[in-house]
Amino acid sequence: MSSCHVAILGSTGSIGTSTFEVLNGLEEQGHDVRVAALATHRSIPKLVEQVKRWKPALAVVADASLVDELRKALDGFEAMPEIAGGADAVVRVATHGEAEIIVNAMVGSSGLLPTVRALEAGKRVALANKEALVVGGRLVTDLARQPAANGIPRLMPVDSEHSALFQALGHHPDREVAQLLLTASGGPFRETPSEEFHLITPERALRHPTWTMGRKITIDSATLMNKGLEVIEAHWLFDIPVERIGVVVHPQSIVHSMVEFVDGNFLAHFSVPDMRLPIQYALTYPDRQPMVVGRRLKVEELEDLQFLPPDEERFPSIGLCREAVATGGTLPAVLNAANEAAVEAFLDGNVSFPGITHTVRQVMEMHTPLPDPDLGDLLEASGWAVNQARKVILSLARESSS
Amino acid sequence: MSSCHVAILGSTGSIGTSTFEVLNGLEEQGHDVRVAALATHRSIPKLVEQVKRWKPALAVVADASLVDELRKALDGFEAMPEIAGGADAVVRVATHGEAEIIVNAMVGSSGLLPTVRALEAGKRVALANKEALVVGGRLVTDLARQPAANGIPRLMPVDSEHSALFQALGHHPDREVAQLLLTASGGPFRETPSEEFHLITPERALRHPTWTMGRKITIDSATLMNKGLEVIEAHWLFDIPVERIGVVVHPQSIVHSMVEFVDGNFLAHFSVPDMRLPIQYALTYPDRQPMVVGRRLKVEELEDLQFLPPDEERFPSIGLCREAVATGGTLPAVLNAANEAAVEAFLDGNVSFPGITHTVRQVMEMHTPLPDPDLGDLLEASGWAVNQARKVILSLARESSS
Repeated sequence: MSSCHVAILGSTGSIGTSTFEVLNGLEEQGHDVRVAALATHRSIPKLVEQVKRWKPALAVVADASLVDELRKALDGFEAMPEIAGGADAVVRVATHGEAEIIVNAMVGSSGLLPTVRALEAGKRVALANKEALVVGGRLVTDLARQPAANGIPRLMPVDSEHSALFQALGHHPDREVAQLLLTASGGPFRETPSEEFHLITPERALRHPTWTMGRKITIDSATLMNKGLEVIEAHWLFDIPVERIGVVVHPQSIVHSMVEFVDGNFLAHFSVPDMRLPIQYALTYPDRQPMVVGRRLKVEELEDLQFLPPDEERFPSIGLCREAVATGGTLPAVLNAANEAAVEAFLDGNVSFPGITHTVRQVMEMHTPLPDPDLGDLLEASGWAVNQARKVILSLARESSS
Repeated sequence: MSSCHVAILGSTGSIGTSTFEVLNGLEEQGHDVRVAALATHRSIPKLVEQVKRWKPALAVVADASLVDELRKALDGFEAMPEIAGGADAVVRVATHGEAEIIVNAMVGSSGLLPTVRALEAGKRVALANKEALVVGGRLVTDLARQPAANGIPRLMPVDSEHSALFQALGHHPDREVAQLLLTASGGPFRETPSEEFHLITPERALRHPTWTMGRKITIDSATLMNKGLEVIEAHWLFDIPVERIGVVVHPQSIVHSMVEFVDGNFLAHFSVPDMRLPIQYALTYPDRQPMVVGRRLKVEELEDLQFLPPDEERFPSIGLCREAVATGGTLPAVLNAANEAAVEAFLDGNVSFPGITHTVRQVMEMHTPLPDPDLGDLLEASGWAVNQARKVILSLARESSS
């Protein structure tokens, strides 16, 4: 039985909730599980439930205006945690003394700072927050270069595709890898003609065919931006040039990614599409523990599997992401921030579905990338990109109403 | 660049020929390749060609009656090797002082003795001769238990399925493995109704849909006996109980096998169906060297992949193999010898296609297994089974002509 002392950032979201299911299962199997600290963006009732079940030492709400609400909701609880709010408090969760591994399940680039601080504090990070790597890939991987005391990597992927690649790569050095192949479900609009893209509503885009996920990542899956961001994430995690990272559309979402080796052999990872698998793997690595929650794939479910090339004309996001990495500097941060702003605007009904990638492209074209950015430069570029994206979206709205 | 000093048993067969293509490629890439010794069953002209190209120190023909023919054919060759014939001479190839790794590409259970002697002599063995493991699994794996000086396994699988499993298993210990899944093309009669099995001619059975192989293994593929033998082989190579080794029919022969881990994750190996890949892997392990011969799989070739349960009623061989391992002792040797005799009889037109497995089953039923057999017991049981199989085949012929 192993020990699993965690802190969870974004504990009330989809990945956070799944993490608790895994922790619960591990505890039932006799593992030494301790949840040291928790942070939510703004979901007080869910956080309160988690605090009562797991009794962390520190409970944080990122939206500082909700601290009093949280304090009130926990009033009289016998194992009262320390309560705090705001971005600084989130960093305190990420660096909490009792936590060995930080699960970063935050949404968007706000996950970068706590990731950096956690690594600086010597923590291991199970990273579901791909934006941290998209924006600050070099920064984060430089900090993670030194493995943990027991030789275990400091950065464990939680994204199903990257967990798949991590598993398929095994101990093989980069020079033995010919190509990484990320699979993509293709999203709900895989077969929708581009002329109909402007009719896509947030409701339709939020209905993903194979995965149940948070809202932002579901929209990113529909635009295939998620896959582009994953190409960048894989580039940083596995130190493979983006030219050697391909994307294959695989509507069944059974195969989660594949590696081609230089000798012509391929290894593919597959399983049920269930985030609890990569979470368990990240938390129990390097051991494989019997599955504590969820179900096994049955061989009969394999039956017919399809693998198709992505249509990069209808879905230009992957190309934009490759371009961002090729240029480097602050450009990936700008791409990411513009996308975050555009997705938010789409969910609010303020921009059309094709307007999302249109906005990202416009903002990227407006940007003069700064080479070798530090954390401050990256955050500044991100802020700039959000503002520019809002301007682009506003002018798109004006155009369409005129 | 690594060194590759080999001796090859069965050098003129399909695997032997492919091995030379790999060696040639490795040499062209600057690796230090040396072919120390060669043995053929009885193909003198091909052996002579190989001797002239590779200049071994020892050239052997297993059929001792052909030694003079070999000597004559090499008359005047400036780098004349020592020439010898017979089973003892084959063992000398398997234990040759200049060879570090022995490629055993012999057909049938005659490959067992040289495998045992090679391991006893401290050699590493790249094993394409699955019958050696089917017959003498415990003997062979006991001898191979001690890894080579550099920590490399003594026994490297060359069968595509077992190479696939070896690669997918990586460094994971047995306790982390839930199940091995061997893929089977299903052979040319995958969709043939069993009522038509008696009409199958050797010519039809020799036309395999996806693999080009020797005659014996091609017939074994048509009866699915090959897959049954592979279940036994996998059991010994990876120390996994046969109950946890499954078979999946996969007509495209792209995925070569899969591993299910206890945590619900699966890894599958795939590549073009080309024996030169597992041969290169076995010869260059633990490094993966750039592919020296053959072509890479293109992702477009994946397109549609099917995975179906085998029809064990029409193809009872897999069940017979499981039964043989479950009982153990001399029974697997008997199954294998009866099958060798029956396949030979089928190729000679002396027994029908369904008569092959019928004969194997009959001989197995007639056998009283001996527990903990030594090499002598195994060879004796094999000889007995060949005789019994011939009797069964004769009585089948009498029945059908009466």
